[in-house]
Amino acid sequence: MRRLMAARSVAIVGASERPEAQSGFVLRNLRDTGFTGRVLPVHPTARRIYGHPAAPSLSALGEVPDVVVVSIPAAGAGAVVAEAAGLGIRAAVVLGSGFGEAGEAGRRMQATMAADARAAGMALCGPNCVGLYNLRERVALFSSRLAPGLPVGDVAVISHSGATAIGMAHNGRLALSHVVSAGNAAVTDVADYLGYFAASGEARVVALLLEQIADPPGFARAMAKAHEAGIVVVAMRSGRSIRGAAATAAHTGALAGSNEAFRAFFRRHGVIEADDLDTVMETCVLAAARRAPARPGLAAIGISGGGLAHLADLAESAGVALADLGDRTRAALGELLPAYVHPANPLDLTGIVFGDPARYARALDLLAGDPAVGQIAVLQDAPRGIDAAGAAEYQGFINAIAGYGTGRDVPLAVLSLLSGGMHPDVEAPLTAAGLPVLRGGSAAMAAIAGMLAVAPAHIATELVAPDPFWRARLAGGAPLTERETKLFLAAHGIAVTREALATDADMAARLAAEFAAPVALKIESPDIQHKTEAGGIRLGVMGAEAVRSAYGEIITAARLHAPTARIAGVLVQEMVTGGTEALVGLSRAAPFGLTLTVGPGGVLVELLGGHALEVLPLDQAAAERLIGSSRLAPLLAGFRGQAPGDRTALAALLCRISAVAQAYDWLIEALDLNPVAVLPEGQGAKVLDALLIRPVNVTTG
Amino acid sequence: MRRLMAARSVAIVGASERPEAQSGFVLRNLRDTGFTGRVLPVHPTARRIYGHPAAPSLSALGEVPDVVVVSIPAAGAGAVVAEAAGLGIRAAVVLGSGFGEAGEAGRRMQATMAADARAAGMALCGPNCVGLYNLRERVALFSSRLAPGLPVGDVAVISHSGATAIGMAHNGRLALSHVVSAGNAAVTDVADYLGYFAASGEARVVALLLEQIADPPGFARAMAKAHEAGIVVVAMRSGRSIRGAAATAAHTGALAGSNEAFRAFFRRHGVIEADDLDTVMETCVLAAARRAPARPGLAAIGISGGGLAHLADLAESAGVALADLGDRTRAALGELLPAYVHPANPLDLTGIVFGDPARYARALDLLAGDPAVGQIAVLQDAPRGIDAAGAAEYQGFINAIAGYGTGRDVPLAVLSLLSGGMHPDVEAPLTAAGLPVLRGGSAAMAAIAGMLAVAPAHIATELVAPDPFWRARLAGGAPLTERETKLFLAAHGIAVTREALATDADMAARLAAEFAAPVALKIESPDIQHKTEAGGIRLGVMGAEAVRSAYGEIITAARLHAPTARIAGVLVQEMVTGGTEALVGLSRAAPFGLTLTVGPGGVLVELLGGHALEVLPLDQAAAERLIGSSRLAPLLAGFRGQAPGDRTALAALLCRISAVAQAYDWLIEALDLNPVAVLPEGQGAKVLDALLIRPVNVTTG
Repeated sequence: MRRLMAARSVAIVGASERPEAQSGFVLRNLRDTGFTGRVLPVHPTARRIYGHPAAPSLSALGEVPDVVVVSIPAAGAGAVVAEAAGLGIRAAVVLGSGFGEAGEAGRRMQATMAADARAAGMALCGPNCVGLYNLRERVALFSSRLAPGLPVGDVAVISHSGATAIGMAHNGRLALSHVVSAGNAAVTDVADYLGYFAASGEARVVALLLEQIADPPGFARAMAKAHEAGIVVVAMRSGRSIRGAAATAAHTGALAGSNEAFRAFFRRHGVIEADDLDTVMETCVLAAARRAPARPGLAAIGISGGGLAHLADLAESAGVALADLGDRTRAALGELLPAYVHPANPLDLTGIVFGDPARYARALDLLAGDPAVGQIAVLQDAPRGIDAAGAAEYQGFINAIAGYGTGRDVPLAVLSLLSGGMHPDVEAPLTAAGLPVLRGGSAAMAAIAGMLAVAPAHIATELVAPDPFWRARLAGGAPLTERETKLFLAAHGIAVTREALATDADMAARLAAEFAAPVALKIESPDIQHKTEAGGIRLGVMGAEAVRSAYGEIITAARLHAPTARIAGVLVQEMVTGGTEALVGLSRAAPFGLTLTVGPGGVLVELLGGHALEVLPLDQAAAERLIGSSRLAPLLAGFRGQAPGDRTALAALLCRISAVAQAYDWLIEALDLNPVAVLPEGQGAKVLDALLIRPVNVTTG
Repeated sequence: MRRLMAARSVAIVGASERPEAQSGFVLRNLRDTGFTGRVLPVHPTARRIYGHPAAPSLSALGEVPDVVVVSIPAAGAGAVVAEAAGLGIRAAVVLGSGFGEAGEAGRRMQATMAADARAAGMALCGPNCVGLYNLRERVALFSSRLAPGLPVGDVAVISHSGATAIGMAHNGRLALSHVVSAGNAAVTDVADYLGYFAASGEARVVALLLEQIADPPGFARAMAKAHEAGIVVVAMRSGRSIRGAAATAAHTGALAGSNEAFRAFFRRHGVIEADDLDTVMETCVLAAARRAPARPGLAAIGISGGGLAHLADLAESAGVALADLGDRTRAALGELLPAYVHPANPLDLTGIVFGDPARYARALDLLAGDPAVGQIAVLQDAPRGIDAAGAAEYQGFINAIAGYGTGRDVPLAVLSLLSGGMHPDVEAPLTAAGLPVLRGGSAAMAAIAGMLAVAPAHIATELVAPDPFWRARLAGGAPLTERETKLFLAAHGIAVTREALATDADMAARLAAEFAAPVALKIESPDIQHKTEAGGIRLGVMGAEAVRSAYGEIITAARLHAPTARIAGVLVQEMVTGGTEALVGLSRAAPFGLTLTVGPGGVLVELLGGHALEVLPLDQAAAERLIGSSRLAPLLAGFRGQAPGDRTALAALLCRISAVAQAYDWLIEALDLNPVAVLPEGQGAKVLDALLIRPVNVTTG
């Protein structure tokens, strides 16, 4: 990776002085940004290119460069990568398009090239990318014009979209360490770049502009390393809508996954998720100031009552809690400020600070000293359109704010509601003091919300070893019935209804008698999945005679419904009364594999909705949080005088399902437990109906 | 109003040359912005102020000025307004604070001043404001520094918050007609300013930055005039959250209303509601281009696949539908563009347009010619941070976009995802062509959504004359019981359960016998509102003996529960079976008075939520829309095999309730119909339980 990211010698295949050539951009960027390593153009006939002696081929270079930039049409690029691999070159940037994003032939070329690179242990940026630019080491393997003098710092941008990378780099708000256009990311992807930054410490804030996550476990590992290294990661994903996904797929051949699963995955791994590019930008500006709030509780302060009211509205929308100021703080503010200033949060200092800036400084100190305050937001609009004399009027109290500094326990951010931002004269003392100056109320508040909320979850889970019997059963044979699914669940410690299979009417009556209560009777056939439609269910059947005749009716109805179905008999099942009906499910959400869903069950599924989804694995705490975020929570809390449900038992059940999902993974396409009866507290949770679906590639008998 | 908005002579009471004096700002602004009328300073002793001869009092001026600017402390301001009224001055701007926003004494001063002004037919801006600035006529009665050379146009800003007015004026994106800081708006408020613009035609786009709507009917009338005059109105309200409302209340003494009611009111009257200031700004920029889309259907086009994918995501979030391009359009695009460009919407032209800009122009023509397309959005980020040479690379296709022009049926907007906006060289040809250039993906898309969706509702309602008997009954006497509420409803044409009052057990049995089915028995007492808690309800009682004993039990339980309650007897009521339970309610939401709510009823109220609210009045179409936007809609559509409910009948019931609310208005504090049984289609809707609550100021006997 270091050869790719910080090359000291760069071969350029397809080097050209044509102004519109990609390689021409790379050569000019290397020259103009001050690259001090060796530039080695490769061209079949030219002797010199941009002053550098050119070689006719890679093997004729006379040295093994750190990286090769491949700037020739797609049809020839694969051969160059293979040749480079053979020569021992360990890094490549493939600029051209016509690969995975351009149909089947392109996908095949990309796969071959990726396999060659991987086999040689080669890092490869692209194809279909703009390349990468390391500002710290001045290595601009970048095929789009770079403005001179971009500020150097420790924010890295990694983008699947080249245009977005270019836009972020040139926005002028960020001091950058690297700009990476990962393109189709055939070999080296976001997780690799992130891992590199975590190891090298060359970036402290990383913005990810994603179109897909190809390797979720790899991404998760890179995030863990990033957190250890103290790196803040903010991500925006394009293609969250159907139309957007289609546009992305046309672009890089990626598929959209479930937005809910992505949100859960990002939350789990401590990635700040942004909904738009402005929020990515403001989060980077805020995070680059390098102080994360140690506790929640926002204090908002400014000189516009109306503006602060709007800011409070935006905070509520973004889920940011405004701190309740303590009595001592309010009393001290009351002494500091005139009687008509209400010592509240948000705090409107009014125009008095124009004449008496010291009061602004003192008010900030008082807010910072309140234990309920974790972050201060100073609201100030001093628009760019005012003239210099107008801007000068702000200087007194702006200097007071700048004097707050960056060393405090409670960080301070300045923000303007209008994204046009502040007059440069007003902003200058604030940025000089190292304070983050954010633009646009919604994006700024989203950035603050992200920084306040980010924390990777630590999930402690027990792994379950797959049982060879069940592994074999899932891998082949007939579809699992309700009864078999429940046997599978019971074998893994999950409580299910008491039940047994009756193969004739008398046996059904004998089994029913053991329950000494009404029973449920259900047709048992691997070929009938929708038992109700087949007339295959009778509920609340009581007494030997009733059971016997119900048995006969069920068999008759099922035969009528599905003449060729294999019928094993009728399941005689206890009726569970009381409790709240929940749905627990496993389903696949690309690219994360099996994900777990919980919510209201039975007849409430369609009516209530309100299901919550998590990526795996879950532990008890994560499972309880998940239940809490679903609409099941109010039902379990004791809805309309019912006894509270056994939430702990349901959470434990979720953990077991999570372990089962991990143990049998690719043998399960989906698992539906619906309903699960969540009994009153202390009485557990029991699966009443269940069905396991295997992937279509598993042999069905 | 014209004297206030376009004065030719301005008296200034409290005129001063002190640099920090409010009046000094006004005097300097009048001078620097080129006011050509007469400036008449009033000062007890000074002879000249800023070169103008000063008079010792208003009456000593020797003329009646169009407007007087009052720039003295609150305590004296009221007397000046009264004096001005006496002298026949018809307009005033009161700058000072210390009025309604500053406690009880201030509120009293404000009320007296407002009464004096109103009695004299005086327009009055403020108090507690920055004043107003008419850019077209160069009248800057404005007490904050104005940058010279603000662009003049036809966008007006009216703001309760002075700082926000200043920020909007100086943002540099808007060509303005007027900036009005309405302050506490004690006399002249948003509706008056809006009405003035509608009548004068001096503004074509109006941005409202509101903290409250003091007079909803007046505002509605002004909006109707604004729509007739072709004015686009965009509004943002501060104080939507509890904290925000508190901050606003501290500021101007206004109270927050229900956000849902505000949203319904804005939608009803064709106001585009913005959630943040950036969206207000982008909507103004878009609307100032003066062409509203004639039909829905957005086509997005650009040269970044990743950016367009993100734009599609933002469109979905904002509720903007991307057009499905017709076969002919797609075929023509296919011919125009290389094979690897997918002719879809969003349309990624890729980098080919750098070399062949004519294709961009042709692609725009093809999109504009598709009948499914109502608006074109061109996505282009060319950030300010690139250098001039970099910007020059864009010129070819930017000129092609600019050539699209503004005269087409399908309007075109250009937008950049990052709110930093475009490089000035890239933006210049676009703005020169009159195209709106929007900044920030979220705000830009919200602006497009607002312009696509805005349309005032035309509600045709029948008014009901209040019945003198019921008016008298509501105005005094004991609280209404369920039975009386239902009699009231029945008298206004609303179907209720058949029922009668029994005053002894035998009578109850006789009445029950008439229903020949199980009945409901309910205690009837003006003093018992929660009948279930009082043991006062029995459902499904069948047979004379059961009815008789239930009667006795109910009376006994009620006496035990409320020994002093007046008990009229027991209501014998038919049991209605089948149908979907709905809740219909009237409740007050300041400042709109009674509003109507509909949603799932009975036990589903807490479980489902999903109630929808509207401001009054409603007609059948509006009522059907309201039902459609509530969670009742899927239940009525035939949930889980039930027969579809009689939605038409429920909508008719809502219209009658709306008419009742308007007829009896202040005599009703709240009306709860819960449940209403919505029977299968064609069978109507019937109120099963109801309670009318009167305001506390109505005598209760």
